[in-house]
Amino acid sequence: MEVGFLGLGIMGKAMSTNLLKHGFKVTVWNRTLSKCDELVEHGASVCESPAEVIKKCKYTIAMLSDPCAALSVVFDKGGVLEQICEGKGYIDMSTVDAETSLKINEAITGKGGRFVEGPVSGSKKPAEDGQLIILAAGDKALFEESIPAFDVLGKRSFFLGQVGNGAKMKLIVNMIMGSMMNAFSEGLVLADKSGLSSDTLLDILDLGAMTNPMFKGKGPSMNKSSYPPAFPLKHQQKDMRLALALGDENAVSMPVAAAANEAFKKARSLGLGDLDFSAVIEAVKFSRE
Amino acid sequence: MEVGFLGLGIMGKAMSTNLLKHGFKVTVWNRTLSKCDELVEHGASVCESPAEVIKKCKYTIAMLSDPCAALSVVFDKGGVLEQICEGKGYIDMSTVDAETSLKINEAITGKGGRFVEGPVSGSKKPAEDGQLIILAAGDKALFEESIPAFDVLGKRSFFLGQVGNGAKMKLIVNMIMGSMMNAFSEGLVLADKSGLSSDTLLDILDLGAMTNPMFKGKGPSMNKSSYPPAFPLKHQQKDMRLALALGDENAVSMPVAAAANEAFKKARSLGLGDLDFSAVIEAVKFSRE
Amino acid sequence: MEVGFLGLGIMGKAMSTNLLKHGFKVTVWNRTLSKCDELVEHGASVCESPAEVIKKCKYTIAMLSDPCAALSVVFDKGGVLEQICEGKGYIDMSTVDAETSLKINEAITGKGGRFVEGPVSGSKKPAEDGQLIILAAGDKALFEESIPAFDVLGKRSFFLGQVGNGAKMKLIVNMIMGSMMNAFSEGLVLADKSGLSSDTLLDILDLGAMTNPMFKGKGPSMNKSSYPPAFPLKHQQKDMRLALALGDENAVSMPVAAAANEAFKKARSLGLGDLDFSAVIEAVKFSRE
Amino acid sequence: MEVGFLGLGIMGKAMSTNLLKHGFKVTVWNRTLSKCDELVEHGASVCESPAEVIKKCKYTIAMLSDPCAALSVVFDKGGVLEQICEGKGYIDMSTVDAETSLKINEAITGKGGRFVEGPVSGSKKPAEDGQLIILAAGDKALFEESIPAFDVLGKRSFFLGQVGNGAKMKLIVNMIMGSMMNAFSEGLVLADKSGLSSDTLLDILDLGAMTNPMFKGKGPSMNKSSYPPAFPLKHQQKDMRLALALGDENAVSMPVAAAANEAFKKARSLGLGDLDFSAVIEAVKFSRE
Repeated sequence: MEVGFLGLGIMGKAMSTNLLKHGFKVTVWNRTLSKCDELVEHGASVCESPAEVIKKCKYTIAMLSDPCAALSVVFDKGGVLEQICEGKGYIDMSTVDAETSLKINEAITGKGGRFVEGPVSGSKKPAEDGQLIILAAGDKALFEESIPAFDVLGKRSFFLGQVGNGAKMKLIVNMIMGSMMNAFSEGLVLADKSGLSSDTLLDILDLGAMTNPMFKGKGPSMNKSSYPPAFPLKHQQKDMRLALALGDENAVSMPVAAAANEAFKKARSLGLGDLDFSAVIEAVKFSRE
Repeated sequence: MEVGFLGLGIMGKAMSTNLLKHGFKVTVWNRTLSKCDELVEHGASVCESPAEVIKKCKYTIAMLSDPCAALSVVFDKGGVLEQICEGKGYIDMSTVDAETSLKINEAITGKGGRFVEGPVSGSKKPAEDGQLIILAAGDKALFEESIPAFDVLGKRSFFLGQVGNGAKMKLIVNMIMGSMMNAFSEGLVLADKSGLSSDTLLDILDLGAMTNPMFKGKGPSMNKSSYPPAFPLKHQQKDMRLALALGDENAVSMPVAAAANEAFKKARSLGLGDLDFSAVIEAVKFSRE
Repeated sequence: MEVGFLGLGIMGKAMSTNLLKHGFKVTVWNRTLSKCDELVEHGASVCESPAEVIKKCKYTIAMLSDPCAALSVVFDKGGVLEQICEGKGYIDMSTVDAETSLKINEAITGKGGRFVEGPVSGSKKPAEDGQLIILAAGDKALFEESIPAFDVLGKRSFFLGQVGNGAKMKLIVNMIMGSMMNAFSEGLVLADKSGLSSDTLLDILDLGAMTNPMFKGKGPSMNKSSYPPAFPLKHQQKDMRLALALGDENAVSMPVAAAANEAFKKARSLGLGDLDFSAVIEAVKFSRE
Repeated sequence: MEVGFLGLGIMGKAMSTNLLKHGFKVTVWNRTLSKCDELVEHGASVCESPAEVIKKCKYTIAMLSDPCAALSVVFDKGGVLEQICEGKGYIDMSTVDAETSLKINEAITGKGGRFVEGPVSGSKKPAEDGQLIILAAGDKALFEESIPAFDVLGKRSFFLGQVGNGAKMKLIVNMIMGSMMNAFSEGLVLADKSGLSSDTLLDILDLGAMTNPMFKGKGPSMNKSSYPPAFPLKHQQKDMRLALALGDENAVSMPVAAAANEAFKKARSLGLGDLDFSAVIEAVKFSRE
């Protein structure tokens, strides 16, 4: 199977490498073209613009850094739109909001192309291991044709219906994560301030019905006030805000998520936005007593 | 090793049976004495009052339904206090608040006895399987002498320092649980009202860093609006309240737990107090649109 | 002084009438021109488009129903932009968001015109009585030249700096109002459910340091579950959301406003969006006990 | 009319002085007897114990510093209980919780005496000016016989039903006050961080439907970060906690009060507990940006 691949950041590089390793013919493009070299060593072809990749390949996957980059790759000169047409499929796996997805979908389908949004859950390590979770939505037939690629990239892919649903589902997952992180932070601080060991609390949680990889992975470093940024707090807070906005649209009152969002905002105001989102515990801890 | 055992409710019966199976000599007492019969079949002896059990055994474990029962067994006529003395140890594994534990501790140690509080995390099934988590505090030497029994009853036992710390740790664990349950509920409702499948959300959560037995166990029935009471909502709310009170004592601001507590209160006002605590999702769901 | 006046809704009609009564020469325009008749009886001239009004008058005031109408009157065919030029001033007193104001400002000043935004606090009655509070921002000189008109329309006008600040100040005032309304609602319900008279609570509040026209005006009808819409709940909730978004931009954590916003959202989900914002008390009251 | 008066702190001294000025015969007692001297100059008699005052007077009013003092004056040696009997009335105007009131009521009525609790709203100045608000509950006949005294002490007195209702009503009033103070604080901080003048916000609020003596009185000093303690923050937070507990009893979910309570707790943890409760704005302000 032949696929185009746009965007060779940390995620894109790992994903396109996996496709090559599994026998796909891959044609890559990256804004900084020199980043393509390593992929070429693994057998990839290179094009000089997104449009050329689209022209050459029936299926093109994109993995870009943010909504702005995702839009630029489609709409700018030399972009996807110049060559997309009937018979071609475009699969954008970048994390973008529903509006961005809808805008891209409209443009692609307006030219007769087919579109799937496919944001992923999971970061660098799962990308390298082909263990991402793919939250796809849009053109059902294109989704099904993409399954051989998705099977290489992820451990599971979901088809969620119309364009925008992938973005929404991701927001909801991240909202739960943000509230859970606050629940966890409050518990750790309460243990500590009550004269109990927060390390022992981690052990106890790990043995019970709430045990989960996130508590296990982040708890020990939180107890050492160390927050190397795997998922930056400011991005987590942005996702909470967007999930609350989704709740606003649908008249869902979510007081716990709202309280968690305000805690992340407090953490931002304390200058913690670029640290890992687990640094929200610092907003709970903060006191002068 | 010979132990006394006071209280043969669901938990106490499972626990004392385990002790018998592992070769302990067990002398039991229960308020309704007929409940002792089954234990006798397994080889237990019976006494007619807590005081007699204490008199007969060097170590006595209690597993009673609530603080009121725990106090009554110690202070009433025929109670523990009448026979407790130097050389004897009393281990109360009932779930009680820190004040109750402290009151019992004072009385026991005032007579020269030794005391350990040991509330457990886990309910019927873990009790039967000897897989409880034991949150012990109080007399360190007595804790250590109790380890052979604790090893039969639980998969892990923690010594948490002074009397009251066991009760406090349990509150903190339950507070995290209550906030997490709200985070989960809000996410499930948001998915549903946004046109996404809340069953698919469960699948996605199950594959990611937040996967945990509680979501896995309760999610499917929550999506079916079924809440068979494993841990009644009104008890969960009471524990949230007590954990918030502990935060108040120690000047720990916990806005997410406070919001979760108000959601449980709303659920109580909707008449859901006797259902499982996962019924809090009904307070999130409730609308007239 | 001669002024143009665009928009003769409830507010605009009252305001332009006041200007006429105080000796201003007023040229009016309204989308439905027949609405101008009454003003003509009071001595107003009429034009057939916003552009004509601008052409005729050095100063033009607009009072339109929403951001959409405010933009349309400026940018559509026959709109303000066609005639605005150096030497002319445009004062938009509609309630719009900061972005809308900025967009209009950019267009007007791009043509050499001057712009003041001047949203008001107060509705029909204060408009008729010339008792509005005017939250102006933008061109300082134009603001000063407008004072004779503002003095007729309002009891006080504030100059708040750059364009957008009027809109922001209004959001902040409304955010405080929304949180206060929730504080009040919770107190009234708590009194009632605790066996106290919520009418007596109103009397007590009225005698103390918190006495204010809003509690006095809305309390008695809230206690009768009557919510004739002076300020619709859905608009109040939208303003809370926008104020929270302003807090997000500036990293201000506002947990009380966030909780109040979620209560308004719950009220919306209960179908109360078109009632007065005081109907949020129904979300507090709701129970099945 | 002859009355006894127990407790000559700031409040009690002002109140008993007012009674003397209005022609009441007053017999006073205070723990530190020397404090009685000034009252004697105004014509008061003195007794050496609460019991003696009760013996001498048909009606005795108490104004003590806290629940502990209120209980001690009744139950200790030389206390009220020693002489209270049929035909005598005891009116405790101290601010105490409902339980304390109920305990005192039970003891007094057990001896045949009559009891009214009458906590007040208002502090030193209103006490001196006879402008307190009296929240009375208990024996209706005694309340009515006390009206001549209440008319001297306060501008209005309410009879709220059974003992405990006075205390509850006061908590509810203070809960609304605490939430309002948070609403106000968040608005002031948001204005400031959004580049608006928080002093101008005060002016705008003062002209609108939310204008109230509390905002007017405390706003200017809050904007100067000055918090001279009129009502200490730690007492406000305690009242929020007790009001939330009253909500808990009656299954009233109050998310805004809960959020406000956590903000006061955060302020306590920042070392602000002894300042005025308006210092909660510091918890909103706090940031490192």
